[in-house]
Amino acid sequence: MASTSPEPAAADETIDTIHIRRLECSDHERGFVALLSQLSPCPDLTTSVFATRFAELAAQGDDHIILVAEDPSASDRRILATGCLFVERKFLRGCGKVGHVEDVVVDAAARGRGLGLRIVRRLVEISRDAGCYKVILDCTPELRAYYAKCGFVEKGVQMAVYF
Amino acid sequence: MASTSPEPAAADETIDTIHIRRLECSDHERGFVALLSQLSPCPDLTTSVFATRFAELAAQGDDHIILVAEDPSASDRRILATGCLFVERKFLRGCGKVGHVEDVVVDAAARGRGLGLRIVRRLVEISRDAGCYKVILDCTPELRAYYAKCGFVEKGVQMAVYF
Repeated sequence: MASTSPEPAAADETIDTIHIRRLECSDHERGFVALLSQLSPCPDLTTSVFATRFAELAAQGDDHIILVAEDPSASDRRILATGCLFVERKFLRGCGKVGHVEDVVVDAAARGRGLGLRIVRRLVEISRDAGCYKVILDCTPELRAYYAKCGFVEKGVQMAVYF
Repeated sequence: MASTSPEPAAADETIDTIHIRRLECSDHERGFVALLSQLSPCPDLTTSVFATRFAELAAQGDDHIILVAEDPSASDRRILATGCLFVERKFLRGCGKVGHVEDVVVDAAARGRGLGLRIVRRLVEISRDAGCYKVILDCTPELRAYYAKCGFVEKGVQMAVYF
Protein backbone atom coordinates (compact mmCIF):
# COMPACT_ATOMS: atom_id res chain seq x y z
CA MET A 1 0.00 0.00 0.00
CA ALA A 2 1.37 3.32 -1.01
CA SER A 3 0.27 5.61 1.72
CA THR A 4 -1.02 4.50 5.04
CA SER A 5 -0.53 5.13 8.72
CA PRO A 6 -0.22 8.88 8.85
CA GLU A 7 -1.91 10.35 11.90
CA PRO A 8 -5.68 9.83 11.86
CA ALA A 9 -6.52 13.46 12.56
CA ALA A 10 -4.58 16.67 12.32
CA ALA A 11 -4.87 19.26 15.03
CA ASP A 12 -2.23 21.96 15.28
CA GLU A 13 -0.47 22.53 11.97
CA THR A 14 1.51 25.53 13.15
CA ILE A 15 4.12 23.69 15.17
CA ASP A 16 7.05 25.75 14.03
CA THR A 17 9.55 23.78 16.05
CA ILE A 18 9.16 20.83 13.66
CA HIS A 19 11.32 21.17 10.59
CA ILE A 20 10.36 19.61 7.25
CA ARG A 21 13.36 18.96 5.01
CA ARG A 22 14.69 16.51 2.45
CA LEU A 23 16.06 13.18 3.59
CA GLU A 24 19.78 13.11 4.28
CA CYS A 25 21.95 10.02 4.22
CA SER A 26 22.69 10.48 7.91
CA ASP A 27 18.99 10.05 8.69
CA HIS A 28 19.72 6.35 8.69
CA GLU A 29 21.05 6.98 12.21
CA ARG A 30 17.92 8.89 13.19
CA GLY A 31 15.44 6.04 12.97
CA PHE A 32 14.30 6.55 9.38
CA VAL A 33 14.10 2.83 8.63
CA ALA A 34 12.38 2.07 11.93
CA LEU A 35 9.83 4.75 11.06
CA LEU A 36 9.13 3.08 7.70
CA SER A 37 8.61 -0.20 9.51
CA GLN A 38 5.45 1.30 11.01
CA LEU A 39 4.08 1.30 7.43
CA SER A 40 5.42 -1.89 5.89
CA PRO A 41 7.80 -4.75 6.75
CA CYS A 42 11.17 -3.16 6.85
CA PRO A 43 14.26 -4.99 8.04
CA ASP A 44 17.05 -2.75 9.24
CA LEU A 45 19.63 -1.84 6.62
CA THR A 46 23.37 -1.63 6.99
CA THR A 47 24.88 1.83 6.59
CA SER A 48 26.39 0.71 3.31
CA VAL A 49 23.15 -0.66 1.85
CA PHE A 50 21.27 2.44 2.97
CA ALA A 51 23.88 4.72 1.42
CA THR A 52 23.78 2.84 -1.87
CA ARG A 53 20.02 3.17 -2.20
CA PHE A 54 20.23 6.80 -1.04
CA ALA A 55 22.72 7.53 -3.83
CA GLU A 56 20.53 5.79 -6.44
CA LEU A 57 17.57 7.93 -5.47
CA ALA A 58 19.61 11.13 -5.14
CA ALA A 59 20.79 10.61 -8.72
CA GLN A 60 17.19 11.19 -9.79
CA GLY A 61 17.46 14.77 -8.53
CA ASP A 62 14.15 16.54 -8.08
CA ASP A 63 12.35 13.65 -9.77
CA HIS A 64 12.59 11.75 -6.48
CA ILE A 65 12.11 13.63 -3.22
CA ILE A 66 11.78 12.19 0.26
CA LEU A 67 10.72 14.68 2.92
CA VAL A 68 11.19 14.08 6.63
CA ALA A 69 10.03 15.89 9.76
CA GLU A 70 12.36 16.35 12.67
CA ASP A 71 12.39 18.32 15.89
CA PRO A 72 15.74 20.15 15.87
CA SER A 73 15.44 20.74 19.60
CA ALA A 74 15.16 17.03 20.42
CA SER A 75 18.30 15.46 21.76
CA ASP A 76 18.22 12.46 19.39
CA ARG A 77 16.72 14.33 16.41
CA ARG A 78 14.79 11.23 15.45
CA ILE A 79 12.74 11.39 12.25
CA LEU A 80 9.08 11.87 13.20
CA ALA A 81 7.40 11.60 9.82
CA THR A 82 8.16 11.09 6.17
CA GLY A 83 6.62 11.10 2.71
CA CYS A 84 7.98 10.48 -0.76
CA LEU A 85 7.27 11.98 -4.18
CA PHE A 86 8.54 10.77 -7.49
CA VAL A 87 7.82 12.29 -10.86
CA GLU A 88 6.78 10.09 -13.77
CA ARG A 89 7.39 11.38 -17.30
CA LYS A 90 4.86 10.42 -19.93
CA PHE A 91 4.20 10.96 -23.61
CA LEU A 92 0.51 11.69 -23.16
CA ARG A 93 -0.77 15.14 -22.16
CA GLY A 94 1.95 16.74 -24.27
CA CYS A 95 4.81 14.90 -22.59
CA GLY A 96 3.11 15.48 -19.27
CA LYS A 97 4.41 14.66 -15.83
CA VAL A 98 2.64 12.98 -12.90
CA GLY A 99 3.62 13.16 -9.26
CA HIS A 100 3.32 9.96 -7.25
CA VAL A 101 3.10 10.24 -3.45
CA GLU A 102 4.31 7.15 -1.63
CA ASP A 103 5.33 5.93 1.81
CA VAL A 104 3.69 8.52 4.03
CA VAL A 105 4.08 7.60 7.67
CA VAL A 106 4.06 9.45 10.98
CA ASP A 107 5.65 8.00 14.09
CA ALA A 108 2.97 6.59 16.40
CA ALA A 109 4.11 8.92 19.19
CA ALA A 110 3.91 12.00 16.98
CA ARG A 111 0.47 11.56 15.40
CA GLY A 112 -2.31 14.14 15.71
CA ARG A 113 0.08 17.06 15.24
CA GLY A 114 -0.46 17.56 11.53
CA LEU A 115 2.99 16.42 10.48
CA GLY A 116 1.69 14.05 7.81
CA LEU A 117 -0.54 16.73 6.32
CA ARG A 118 2.31 19.23 6.26
CA ILE A 119 4.48 16.77 4.36
CA VAL A 120 1.76 15.75 1.90
CA ARG A 121 0.79 19.37 1.23
CA ARG A 122 4.43 20.18 0.56
CA LEU A 123 4.68 17.24 -1.85
CA VAL A 124 1.57 18.46 -3.68
CA GLU A 125 3.12 21.95 -3.97
CA ILE A 126 6.34 20.46 -5.29
CA SER A 127 4.40 18.45 -7.88
CA ARG A 128 2.55 21.55 -9.06
CA ASP A 129 5.73 23.63 -9.17
CA ALA A 130 7.45 20.86 -11.15
CA GLY A 131 4.77 21.18 -13.84
CA CYS A 132 2.93 17.94 -13.13
CA TYR A 133 -0.63 17.92 -14.43
CA LYS A 134 -1.70 15.82 -11.46
CA VAL A 135 -0.40 14.16 -8.33
CA ILE A 136 -1.76 10.78 -7.22
CA LEU A 137 -1.52 8.34 -4.35
CA ASP A 138 -3.03 5.05 -3.26
CA CYS A 139 -4.44 4.56 0.22
CA THR A 140 -6.88 2.52 2.23
CA PRO A 141 -10.53 3.62 2.07
CA GLU A 142 -10.36 4.87 5.67
CA LEU A 143 -7.81 7.51 4.66
CA ARG A 144 -9.99 9.17 2.00
CA ALA A 145 -10.99 12.00 4.35
CA TYR A 146 -7.42 12.49 5.53
CA TYR A 147 -6.09 13.05 2.03
CA ALA A 148 -9.13 15.13 1.11
CA LYS A 149 -7.67 17.72 3.51
CA CYS A 150 -4.80 18.05 1.04
CA GLY A 151 -7.14 18.43 -1.93
CA PHE A 152 -7.19 14.81 -3.07
CA VAL A 153 -10.37 13.30 -4.52
CA GLU A 154 -11.05 9.64 -5.21
CA LYS A 155 -10.38 8.71 -8.83
CA GLY A 156 -10.27 4.94 -9.07
CA VAL A 157 -9.20 1.68 -7.52
CA GLN A 158 -5.72 0.39 -6.84
CA MET A 159 -4.99 -3.16 -7.98
CA ALA A 160 -1.90 -5.19 -7.07
CA VAL A 161 -0.09 -8.46 -7.67
CA TYR A 162 2.22 -9.54 -4.86
CA PHE A 163 5.12 -11.86 -5.62
CA MET B 1 -6.20 7.63 -14.59
CA ALA B 2 -3.37 5.24 -14.94
CA SER B 3 -4.84 2.39 -16.86
CA THR B 4 -8.05 2.52 -18.78
CA SER B 5 -9.45 1.66 -22.17
CA PRO B 6 -7.90 -1.70 -22.87
CA GLU B 7 -10.28 -3.98 -24.66
CA PRO B 8 -13.32 -4.88 -22.51
CA ALA B 9 -12.97 -8.62 -23.05
CA ALA B 10 -10.20 -10.82 -24.27
CA ALA B 11 -10.96 -13.68 -26.58
CA ASP B 12 -8.17 -15.24 -28.57
CA GLU B 13 -4.80 -14.71 -26.94
CA THR B 14 -2.90 -16.89 -29.32
CA ILE B 15 -2.67 -14.51 -32.24
CA ASP B 16 0.95 -15.15 -33.07
CA THR B 17 0.98 -12.65 -35.89
CA ILE B 18 0.89 -9.80 -33.39
CA HIS B 19 4.31 -8.95 -32.06
CA ILE B 20 4.86 -7.48 -28.59
CA ARG B 21 8.09 -5.51 -28.31
CA ARG B 22 9.58 -2.45 -26.63
CA LEU B 23 8.75 0.99 -27.93
CA GLU B 24 11.14 2.36 -30.55
CA CYS B 25 11.65 6.01 -31.33
CA SER B 26 10.35 5.43 -34.86
CA ASP B 27 6.99 4.36 -33.41
CA HIS B 28 6.17 8.04 -33.38
CA GLU B 29 5.46 7.55 -37.09
CA ARG B 30 3.28 4.51 -36.40
CA GLY B 31 0.50 6.26 -34.53
CA PHE B 32 1.79 5.76 -30.99
CA VAL B 33 0.69 9.21 -29.83
CA ALA B 34 -2.69 8.90 -31.53
CA LEU B 35 -3.14 5.58 -29.73
CA LEU B 36 -2.44 7.23 -26.38
CA SER B 37 -5.04 9.87 -27.19
CA GLN B 38 -7.66 7.13 -26.87
CA LEU B 39 -6.72 7.04 -23.18
CA SER B 40 -6.06 10.67 -22.25
CA PRO B 41 -5.81 14.08 -23.94
CA CYS B 42 -2.75 13.82 -26.06
CA PRO B 43 -1.78 16.54 -28.54
CA ASP B 44 0.49 15.39 -31.32
CA LEU B 45 4.21 15.80 -30.66
CA THR B 46 6.88 16.95 -33.07
CA THR B 47 9.50 14.37 -33.95
CA SER B 48 12.03 16.34 -31.92
CA VAL B 49 9.88 16.56 -28.79
CA PHE B 50 9.01 12.88 -29.04
CA ALA B 51 12.67 11.93 -29.46
CA THR B 52 13.69 14.01 -26.46
CA ARG B 53 11.18 12.35 -24.17
CA PHE B 54 12.05 8.94 -25.65
CA ALA B 55 15.71 9.52 -24.79
CA GLU B 56 14.86 10.62 -21.23
CA LEU B 57 12.91 7.43 -20.67
CA ALA B 58 15.44 5.20 -22.43
CA ALA B 59 18.09 6.55 -20.05
CA GLN B 60 16.19 4.79 -17.25
CA GLY B 61 17.05 1.46 -18.86
CA ASP B 62 14.96 -1.45 -17.62
CA ASP B 63 13.45 0.74 -14.89
CA HIS B 64 11.14 2.20 -17.54
CA ILE B 65 9.68 -0.10 -20.18
CA ILE B 66 7.00 0.69 -22.72
CA LEU B 67 5.67 -2.31 -24.64
CA VAL B 68 3.77 -2.01 -27.88
CA ALA B 69 1.85 -4.47 -30.04
CA GLU B 70 2.17 -4.36 -33.79
CA ASP B 71 1.16 -6.52 -36.70
CA PRO B 72 4.35 -6.97 -38.75
CA SER B 73 2.28 -8.05 -41.74
CA ALA B 74 0.25 -4.84 -41.83
CA SER B 75 1.32 -2.38 -44.49
CA ASP B 76 1.44 0.63 -42.14
CA ARG B 77 2.65 -1.31 -39.07
CA ARG B 78 0.58 0.93 -36.83
CA ILE B 79 0.84 0.40 -33.09
CA LEU B 80 -2.23 -1.52 -31.92
CA ALA B 81 -1.75 -1.49 -28.16
CA THR B 82 0.63 -0.30 -25.50
CA GLY B 83 1.38 -0.49 -21.80
CA CYS B 84 4.07 0.99 -19.59
CA LEU B 85 5.98 -0.26 -16.57
CA PHE B 86 8.30 1.72 -14.36
CA VAL B 87 10.17 0.43 -11.36
CA GLU B 88 10.17 2.41 -8.11
CA ARG B 89 13.04 1.85 -5.70
CA LYS B 90 12.23 2.10 -2.01
CA PHE B 91 13.97 1.81 1.34
CA LEU B 92 11.23 -0.31 2.90
CA ARG B 93 10.99 -4.07 2.38
CA GLY B 94 14.79 -4.30 2.44
CA CYS B 95 15.33 -1.72 -0.31
CA GLY B 96 12.42 -3.27 -2.17
CA LYS B 97 11.22 -2.43 -5.64
CA VAL B 98 7.67 -1.89 -6.89
CA GLY B 99 6.47 -2.10 -10.48
CA HIS B 100 3.95 0.50 -11.61
CA VAL B 101 1.82 -0.29 -14.67
CA GLU B 102 0.59 2.81 -16.48
CA ASP B 103 -1.00 3.89 -19.74
CA VAL B 104 -2.48 0.65 -20.98
CA VAL B 105 -4.54 1.22 -24.10
CA VAL B 106 -5.66 -0.87 -27.04
CA ASP B 107 -6.73 0.70 -30.32
CA ALA B 108 -10.51 0.72 -30.60
CA ALA B 109 -10.33 -1.31 -33.82
CA ALA B 110 -8.13 -3.99 -32.22
CA ARG B 111 -10.01 -4.67 -28.99
CA GLY B 112 -11.31 -8.08 -28.03
CA ARG B 113 -8.18 -9.85 -29.29
CA GLY B 114 -6.38 -10.08 -25.94
CA LEU B 115 -3.62 -7.64 -26.84
CA GLY B 116 -4.00 -5.63 -23.64
CA LEU B 117 -3.87 -8.75 -21.50
CA ARG B 118 -0.78 -9.99 -23.32
CA ILE B 119 0.97 -6.70 -22.64
CA VAL B 120 -0.08 -6.48 -19.01
CA ARG B 121 0.91 -10.09 -18.33
CA ARG B 122 4.29 -9.42 -19.87
CA LEU B 123 4.71 -6.34 -17.67
CA VAL B 124 3.83 -8.41 -14.60
CA GLU B 125 6.43 -11.01 -15.59
CA ILE B 126 9.04 -8.29 -16.10
CA SER B 127 8.25 -6.85 -12.65
CA ARG B 128 8.66 -10.24 -11.02
CA ASP B 129 11.88 -10.99 -12.90
CA ALA B 130 13.23 -7.56 -11.89
CA GLY B 131 12.81 -8.53 -8.25
CA CYS B 132 9.84 -6.32 -7.45
CA TYR B 133 7.88 -7.47 -4.42
CA LYS B 134 4.66 -6.28 -6.05
CA VAL B 135 3.31 -4.61 -9.17
CA ILE B 136 0.44 -2.14 -8.94
CA LEU B 137 -1.86 -0.13 -11.17
CA ASP B 138 -4.82 2.20 -10.87
CA CYS B 139 -7.96 1.74 -12.92
CA THR B 140 -11.64 2.49 -13.01
CA PRO B 141 -13.88 0.15 -10.99
CA GLU B 142 -15.27 -1.35 -14.22
CA LEU B 143 -11.83 -2.74 -15.08
CA ARG B 144 -11.40 -4.77 -11.87
CA ALA B 145 -12.41 -8.02 -13.61
CA TYR B 146 -10.18 -7.29 -16.59
CA TYR B 147 -7.06 -6.90 -14.48
CA ALA B 148 -8.07 -9.83 -12.30
CA LYS B 149 -7.33 -11.96 -15.38
CA CYS B 150 -3.70 -10.93 -14.96
CA GLY B 151 -3.68 -11.79 -11.26
CA PHE B 152 -4.43 -8.35 -9.86
CA VAL B 153 -6.56 -7.96 -6.75
CA GLU B 154 -8.06 -4.77 -5.38
CA LYS B 155 -5.91 -3.26 -2.65
CA GLY B 156 -7.10 0.29 -2.06
CA VAL B 157 -8.35 3.52 -3.57
CA GLN B 158 -6.59 5.92 -5.88
CA MET B 159 -6.73 9.60 -4.92
CA ALA B 160 -5.66 12.50 -7.12
CA VAL B 161 -5.19 16.25 -7.24
CA TYR B 162 -5.41 17.78 -10.73
CA PHE B 163 -3.67 21.09 -11.39
